Amino acid sequence: MIAEIISTGDEVLSGAVVDSNAAWIARRLYETGIAVGRHVCVGDDFEHLADVLCKAGRRTDIAVVTGGLGPTVDDITARAAALAAGVDLKANPAAMAYIEEFFRRFDRPLSDSDARQAVLPETAEPILNSVGTAPGFTLTIGKCRFFFLPGVPFEMRKMMKDHVIPFLENEAWQGGTRGFYREKRISLFGLPEAHVNERLADLTDMIGGVKLGMLAEFPVIHVKVSAFGQDLQEIDAMLEQAADLIRKRVKKFVFSESGQSMEEVVGQLLKQRSATLALAESCTGGLIASRITNVAGSSDYFLCSAVTYSNEAKIRMIGVLPHTLETHGAVSKQTAMEMARGARRMADADYALAVSGIAGPGGGTDEKPVGTVCIGFAGPDESFAEQHCFPFDNRLANKKIFAEAALNRLRKTLKSEP
Amino acid sequence: MIAEIISTGDEVLSGAVVDSNAAWIARRLYETGIAVGRHVCVGDDFEHLADVLCKAGRRTDIAVVTGGLGPTVDDITARAAALAAGVDLKANPAAMAYIEEFFRRFDRPLSDSDARQAVLPETAEPILNSVGTAPGFTLTIGKCRFFFLPGVPFEMRKMMKDHVIPFLENEAWQGGTRGFYREKRISLFGLPEAHVNERLADLTDMIGGVKLGMLAEFPVIHVKVSAFGQDLQEIDAMLEQAADLIRKRVKKFVFSESGQSMEEVVGQLLKQRSATLALAESCTGGLIASRITNVAGSSDYFLCSAVTYSNEAKIRMIGVLPHTLETHGAVSKQTAMEMARGARRMADADYALAVSGIAGPGGGTDEKPVGTVCIGFAGPDESFAEQHCFPFDNRLANKKIFAEAALNRLRKTLKSEP
Repeated sequence: MIAEIISTGDEVLSGAVVDSNAAWIARRLYETGIAVGRHVCVGDDFEHLADVLCKAGRRTDIAVVTGGLGPTVDDITARAAALAAGVDLKANPAAMAYIEEFFRRFDRPLSDSDARQAVLPETAEPILNSVGTAPGFTLTIGKCRFFFLPGVPFEMRKMMKDHVIPFLENEAWQGGTRGFYREKRISLFGLPEAHVNERLADLTDMIGGVKLGMLAEFPVIHVKVSAFGQDLQEIDAMLEQAADLIRKRVKKFVFSESGQSMEEVVGQLLKQRSATLALAESCTGGLIASRITNVAGSSDYFLCSAVTYSNEAKIRMIGVLPHTLETHGAVSKQTAMEMARGARRMADADYALAVSGIAGPGGGTDEKPVGTVCIGFAGPDESFAEQHCFPFDNRLANKKIFAEAALNRLRKTLKSEP
Repeated sequence: MIAEIISTGDEVLSGAVVDSNAAWIARRLYETGIAVGRHVCVGDDFEHLADVLCKAGRRTDIAVVTGGLGPTVDDITARAAALAAGVDLKANPAAMAYIEEFFRRFDRPLSDSDARQAVLPETAEPILNSVGTAPGFTLTIGKCRFFFLPGVPFEMRKMMKDHVIPFLENEAWQGGTRGFYREKRISLFGLPEAHVNERLADLTDMIGGVKLGMLAEFPVIHVKVSAFGQDLQEIDAMLEQAADLIRKRVKKFVFSESGQSMEEVVGQLLKQRSATLALAESCTGGLIASRITNVAGSSDYFLCSAVTYSNEAKIRMIGVLPHTLETHGAVSKQTAMEMARGARRMADADYALAVSGIAGPGGGTDEKPVGTVCIGFAGPDESFAEQHCFPFDNRLANKKIFAEAALNRLRKTLKSEP
């Protein structure tokens, strides 16, 4: 059973948008035990798309198509699918009822172009979209079962999870030709990709049948081991063996083996201790607080962040001494420590984390170049500060790596790791 | 002149790596005046790749292929190219000399598998790689000129810039068939995509030759008009005509015509007034501050954000009255207004913006459902608060749209727009 992934839209074709949908769909299909044969991307060109759909229908068993289902003029996918399947377009009553209900719920008027989204190839079955207006649909073209989904990532993902994957997992439909796919992801921070690679290069030779992948999601690296086959027990044993080897080689840098982000790991540790956290952020400008509060339920442990961008704010909001700023500068271990202590005191928190650094592009000196960051920590038993220097001169890269390093320091302290 | 982009490799096909090379190459080709017809991605499968190369050779004028040129067993691109071109493989003397020199320079022994990288289709001309060992090459298959480059992004990019783009820009080779490509982007907030479309649907009929595209970067919509042709003056006039029409139809929602983000526009307005800004954020959890500080030079106007996640923090950090919280709740216009006034006073800022809302998934009530947000503003002449309700139940979506709405409110106030 081979699948193809077809992305549509001028924005993707012209490179204005990177096609991350294709990679996400490919991973889900592999997990379901379905191998992917190719990805294709075409623009908003009706005839070209119809041609691609026709050919895929002759060549492959399953195809997932994204994009071009919305209400706008460049949304030509349903028309192209109808041409490729050799059927007419027709307003689909189930899709229409759903769109009407969606607009009623939000008390919005239904326009003609909204209603056009319910016009589907007449042999199509709609796939309902619970988070947007454009319904998807499934139909057969040639020998291939097609799934048409919106290009908006969160709508597409929800419809894949709720409808497409359950359909594909149905053994009856598959006729038993599926294999098993398993993967394990180990997330690292603090070791450059080339070094991770070097330490793990011989892994696939040592454990045959295991594939090694590396996904850099700056500044974090996810090492992925995966295997595909007929015997589930054998696959699981191989993956566990591979994971053991990875742990042995890069243990110090592992922060998660469950796909959890750094802020989720830290949140869990705080919850386990029933402890509260306050932050004081300078150069990260609220990024750490924003990441912490991306986690639902973070109000259980997160109290506040003083984003003290100016020196004046550091003095007013968390009581950093003007003398400290004058003597040591805003980016110093002394200031970072006072920021952490001040935030802890001000918020009456169990722990406080503080960051002050130089994200660039300006502001660097010979002594403290762009990429320098001081991380302060204050807790009931100890407080400390440390200084790091990262080799980037990009502002956003520095904000990201400063935030990750600070959260990682907090994680290690909460776990009492060196 | 139409180009295709072909990515190879199991890592990309399986989704372990997102194919950002294709988007990058597409942008460079468009800039060079060459339209892209499709992207294709195939795995490390010799016959499948040869078939894809053959078909592209019949269909298109230019193809850029990435990946599979290295020294390992899955590097099968040269072999597939030779098959598709119907020629033999042969050690290429220029490529071999280069590889030998590269290894000499870094004092590394040359292995058989390294040397194999110099074995190319016999009609190929090598494209030298100054930052890695694998040479690229160019050759003709069918009617199409192919460029084969490594998959490592920085090697690929350097070879595109140094060799492929200059080659494609050479008019003599092109026979004058190159065109010009221009685009204009207008960014909107506050109008759903379907409504934007409805108001603009007849634009391409009214101005022939202009393409209309819409890129939803939640919660913002970028309307893109583009044109491709031989006469640069004519293209520019068409685009200006299209932009005028767009301005007339959706003026109220336009916040940028230069590709600037909302935080850049707000930053520029503050700078023009030599004014300073303080924030008080509850549900957005520091996201607004983080966006503001993504802009280099934001320390000129941004003082601080009080990320007051808990009620206690709202009282301590910015002096919200306990009575207000008890009577009206944390998510109320009264609290948002006090937050803004408190932040302005505490930081001694010219303007302050405050946000309190319910991002979800929990915390909603019948009266104030998930998606409710109160935005407070305080300035030298006035202060006010307003309440909005957005139809999302996704936490991250709500954080994003709350932040955008708050920044947009500030933008309009600074511009004295209604």
